[in-house]
Order: sequence, then C-alpha cells, then structure tokens
Amino acid sequence: MTQNTVEKTPVTLLGLGAMGTALARAWLAAGHPLTVWNRTPARAAALATEGARVADTPAAAVAANGLVVVCLLDDASVAEVLSGTDLADRDLVDLTTGTPAEARARARWVRERGARYLDGGIMAVPPMIGVPQAGGYVFYSGSHELFERHRETLAVPAGTTYVGEDAGFAALHDVALLSAMYGMFAGAAHAFALIRKEDIDPAALAPLLADWLVAMAPAVHQTADRLRSGDYTKNVVSHLAMQVAGTPTFLRTAEQQGVSPELLSPYFELMRRRLAEGGGAEDLTGVIDLLVH
Amino acid sequence: MTQNTVEKTPVTLLGLGAMGTALARAWLAAGHPLTVWNRTPARAAALATEGARVADTPAAAVAANGLVVVCLLDDASVAEVLSGTDLADRDLVDLTTGTPAEARARARWVRERGARYLDGGIMAVPPMIGVPQAGGYVFYSGSHELFERHRETLAVPAGTTYVGEDAGFAALHDVALLSAMYGMFAGAAHAFALIRKEDIDPAALAPLLADWLVAMAPAVHQTADRLRSGDYTKNVVSHLAMQVAGTPTFLRTAEQQGVSPELLSPYFELMRRRLAEGGGAEDLTGVIDLLVH
Ligand SMILES: NC(=O)c1ccc[n+]([C@@H]2O[C@H](COP(=O)([O-])OP(=O)(O)OC[C@H]3O[C@@H](n4cnc5c(N)ncnc54)[C@H](OP(=O)(O)O)[C@@H]3O)[C@@H](O)[C@H]2O)c1
Ligand SMILES: NC(=O)c1ccc[n+]([C@@H]2O[C@H](COP(=O)([O-])OP(=O)(O)OC[C@H]3O[C@@H](n4cnc5c(N)ncnc54)[C@H](OP(=O)(O)O)[C@@H]3O)[C@@H](O)[C@H]2O)c1
Repeated sequence: MTQNTVEKTPVTLLGLGAMGTALARAWLAAGHPLTVWNRTPARAAALATEGARVADTPAAAVAANGLVVVCLLDDASVAEVLSGTDLADRDLVDLTTGTPAEARARARWVRERGARYLDGGIMAVPPMIGVPQAGGYVFYSGSHELFERHRETLAVPAGTTYVGEDAGFAALHDVALLSAMYGMFAGAAHAFALIRKEDIDPAALAPLLADWLVAMAPAVHQTADRLRSGDYTKNVVSHLAMQVAGTPTFLRTAEQQGVSPELLSPYFELMRRRLAEGGGAEDLTGVIDLLVH
Repeated sequence: MTQNTVEKTPVTLLGLGAMGTALARAWLAAGHPLTVWNRTPARAAALATEGARVADTPAAAVAANGLVVVCLLDDASVAEVLSGTDLADRDLVDLTTGTPAEARARARWVRERGARYLDGGIMAVPPMIGVPQAGGYVFYSGSHELFERHRETLAVPAGTTYVGEDAGFAALHDVALLSAMYGMFAGAAHAFALIRKEDIDPAALAPLLADWLVAMAPAVHQTADRLRSGDYTKNVVSHLAMQVAGTPTFLRTAEQQGVSPELLSPYFELMRRRLAEGGGAEDLTGVIDLLVH
C-alpha cells in the first residue's frame, strides 16, 4: 500500500467489539489517525500495535478528536460511556444498533450537550467492513451538515446511504430491512423443512429457491406504487380471492410433510381477514394496512 | 411469423381458465394442432377462431390425441373430468395445482387406467406463458419417459425443470418455493408497515428493500450446506445467541411504530427455543429442525 500524503481526518472510536474492531482496522488501513477506547482494555492491545492511540478513559478519547464514533452494545451503554465526557462541539456518530425512538432521544441528549449527532444503522457484518466489493453499507440520519463534512471518512469502512434529518430514520430503515430479511429466512426455513424427510438434496433446492426469491423480490416496487396511490386493485394479476383459495394447498402440504405451519399461517390469516373485509379484488398490499394500528 | 413445416405434436388440453387459455394460445402460436375442452363451452369460442378444435366432451378430447394436458381448478375437478374418459396408452400431463400426496394418488389412479403420468407445478402467472424472457417455468415430476418424449412440446409455454420420478416432487417444489415467497412477502409487508406513518416515501424504501432481499437470498446456499453436513456451527458469522439478543430491538421498533409483531414473532420464538435448547453457537439453520415433527 502506498502512503497517502493527503491529511486524513482523525477519528475517535469508542467500543472495540467485533464491529468496532473491524471499523478501527478499516480507518487505520486508510491512513486515518485513530484514537480508541474500550471498557475491557485488552481488546485495544492488538490495535495499538497497528498504529491506534489508546485512550485511558472515554473522556480522554472524546477530547482527542472532533469526530467521535461510538459502536457499543446498545443505547444504554452509549449513555453510560458518554456521560462522563465533554461533548461540546463534537461531531458524534452513533453506530450502535437501537430503535428509532432511542436514536431520537439520544440525538436530543447529545445536542443538549453541544454536539452534532448522526445516527448509523450498519447493514453489514464485520468481515464485510473495509471490503467495498462486499456491498455492505450504513444508513445515516440526523445532522446532514455532519454527514457532508465527514462523508469521505464515513465511506472508508462501508458504503453510506443518508436517509434524512430525522435521527430515527437510520434505525427505522435498518430494522425494516432486517425484519424483511427475517421474513424471507422464515419462508426459506419452511421450504427446507418441507423436503427434510424426502430424498431431495437441499443443495439442489437451494439454487431454485434463491433464483425464485431473487425473481420475486422486485414485487416490492409494485407494493410501493400501490401504497402511494392507495389503489390496490388496478392491474392485479393474482387477486387476493384466488390466492386465499390456494392457501389450503400450502397448509395441507405442510401437514402431509409433517411440518408445522406456524411460520406460514399468520400471513395467510391476514390474507383471509382482508378478503373477509372485501379485499378480494386487491393484490396482497392490503395486508399491510391490517398490521398498522 | 413463418409457417413451420416440421410436424408439431398434437395436444389435447382440458381446462380453459386463465391459465389453460394462456397455454392454449402458446401452443397454437407455435403451430401445434390443438384440441380443447372446457366445462363452460363459451370459453372455448375465441380459441376456435384462432385454430383450436373444440371437443364436445372430455372423452372426445382425450380420444383425439396421445398427449393430454389437464389444467383445471383442483385435483377433485381432474378426477371428475377424467372419470368418463378412456386413458389407455395416453401421456397425461397434469398441470393442476395440488399437494404432493394428491399428485402421487392421481399418478397411481392414472397408471391403473393404462396411461403414463407427469405432474406439473407452474411457476408463472398467465401473462408469462409463451413469453420465454419472462422467466416462468414448470416443475415436472413423474414419468421421465413421458417428459423426454414431449420435452419440446412442454417447453413451448414455459421453461421446464424435471425434478424426479416421484410424482409428488413437482408439487413439493412448487409449494416450497411459493411458501418461501409468502415468507418474503410477509417480511416486506412488515417493513412497509413500519414506515406507514412516517414521512418516508414507500417508493424510496422499495429499491433498498429489493436490493437487500436479493443480496440476502443466496444465504439459502449456506443453509443447504449446513443441512447436508449436519454442522450448524462451523464458520458462523452471526451466531444465534447474538441474533436473539437483537430481537427486542425489532419488537420494540414495531411497538413504537404501532405495527403488530404477528408476522415477525413466530420466527423469533423459534430462534429463542433453539437457543434455549443449546443452539447459541449455531446460525439460523436449527430453526428448520424445530419445524419438522
Ligand atoms: N457484529 C455484527 O454483525 C453487527 C452488525 C451490524 C450492527 N452491529 C452493531 O454494532 C454494535 C456493536 O456490535 P459488536 O458486534 O461489536 O458487539 P460485541 O462484539 O458484543 O461488542 C460490544 C461492545 O460494547 C462494549 N460494551 C458493552 N456494554 C458496555 C458498557 N456498559 N460500557 C462500556 N462498553 C460496553 C463492549 O465492551 P467490552 O469489550 O468491555 O465487553 C464491546 O466493546 C451493536 O450495536 C451491534 O448491534 C453489529
Ligand atoms: N392463474 C395463475 O396465476 C396460476 C399460476 C400457477 C398455477 N395455476 C394453476 O392452474 C390451474 C388452473 O388455474 P386457472 O388460473 O386457469 O383457474 P381458473 O381461471 O379459475 O379456471 C379454472 C378452470 O377449471 C375448470 N373447472 C373447475 N371446476 C371444474 C369441474 N368440477 N369440472 C370441470 N371443470 C372445472 C373451470 O371450468 P369453467 O370455465 O367451466 O368454470 C376452468 O376451466 C389451477 O390448478 C391453478 O392453481 C394458476
């Protein structure tokens, strides 16, 4: 690697768990001066040999640089770690996972202490950090000024996607995408369960399953268009009445294969409810309205 | 279109619903002599003007050609329609959706009447039939001899994927993929529900959601490898204990956004159960074993 002569923004990083350590290595590799702190000092030792300065206290770490990144277990640990520090005029970037409400409250708390606040939701696992081709990225929301000022520094560990001034939006996008992913995994688990006792190689099903899910994922664009327009019936190919009529085949197949329907039936139940309420000519979009109170 | 001089296999088709009509048009367009029958004769009228021969009874339609395709509402209607026909030495292809057990029983029933049986599970909607670039295809299982003999004819309406001599396997693959799709749709519904009351355009979330699901779908290959090896702990990046620890963030976010957790919590519940049973170092594969009785 060639030594870069352009001066890189110094970064303070609080939290050296699996994710914090990966972030630290990415900034060090890119030539950013880095000050780290971790509750358990042992985890900072290896990074010290790689060029990181190790602070003895969170207060000292925060005092070292204008850009302060925290990546701790949860919002409660962020409060604990930052409470004894002077945040005046810092640019605080919080990469700790939490709820939108926690991010909003933390943003207020941080601003009251004279700092700017940017919340992040990391859409990557540690091995993807600092590996651009891995496709990982971070949702950011909160201070746009802070985001713009540190755009290049923030882009070092992973891609960046800014989603709004509302500090809660990064967490909301993060949770929305991961929730959808767990739904997909639940569906795939049911599929694998169906063939578990048959003479079918799971590795033969996998490519068919992956291709099918990839082919069906873009259906979310139509869902979005329907939510915007409020019209759930226009140009519907497979209407709800037909799809509900098909559900017994899925449930009987599960029963015949000795598979619990528990991951499938809650969605079918909502489809049935929407049909009973008159949504037979719609596609599946109406189910979303049944979820929101 | 140029007139093809090669002789095309004549086809009999029973059932002219939305799907049957699309199949009929594809074979007619490809130059296959076609004999059709439908319970409600009116649905055959348009096809007659397009070149189809219309039979007065199922028996006459079955007598007309060696290759007989049925695409009716359900397995009960197949039994009803075929009961008065002479199936001796026919090649019967059943594209009616059903369960694996229904397909196996129908295969026996058909073979007892002297015919060969191939079951099909259609992975397409009618507008995709006869449109190769739409990517639709049909799972086939049962008589491999029949499949090989009519391979080209069967490839006219959509792609073909043969999955085994067991007549139930086409239905099993069909149901497995569609079940997984409903899981993905359930997850996406939850995601859209989370932003429903926020100032976030669903059309801005959609591409992020689609890309994320497409990026995560290949995880099913790892799941398949683990199911084959029986080792659910090797090279795990996000272990179950960590993922279960993260679930309260998802559930609290749902609560804060006024969204019912009913589509998410059954999967989380299984994750918790597997963790309680000692699966903390595994990935999510162990959940599948909890589904199978
Ligand atoms: N790992 C991933 O795949 C992943 C992916 C996306 C997002 N994230 C998020 O990134 C954040 C960090 O995750 P991680 O994987 O690095 O977790 P981790 O390996 O469990 O590390 C947790 C970190 O938090 C510190 N900590 C916990 N409680 C503390 C307290 N009360 N006071 C001070 N420090 C405390 C730990 O310090 P000690 O070393 O002293 O215990 C450690 O540095 C989490 O919010 C996580 O949700 C992780
Ligand atoms: N449409 C799709 O998107 C789709 C996708 C994949 C698979 N499939 C499968 O394809 C098959 C046909 O679907 P479709 O969309 O064509 O359904 P459809 O439009 O509802 O048509 C049903 C067909 O079955 C006939 N039928 C029903 N009960 C009958 C009985 N007791 N005796 C004789 N005929 C009877 C109907 O005749 P009448 O005209 O006299 O009512 C009609 O031809 C189903 O198994 C379906 O699951 C459909």
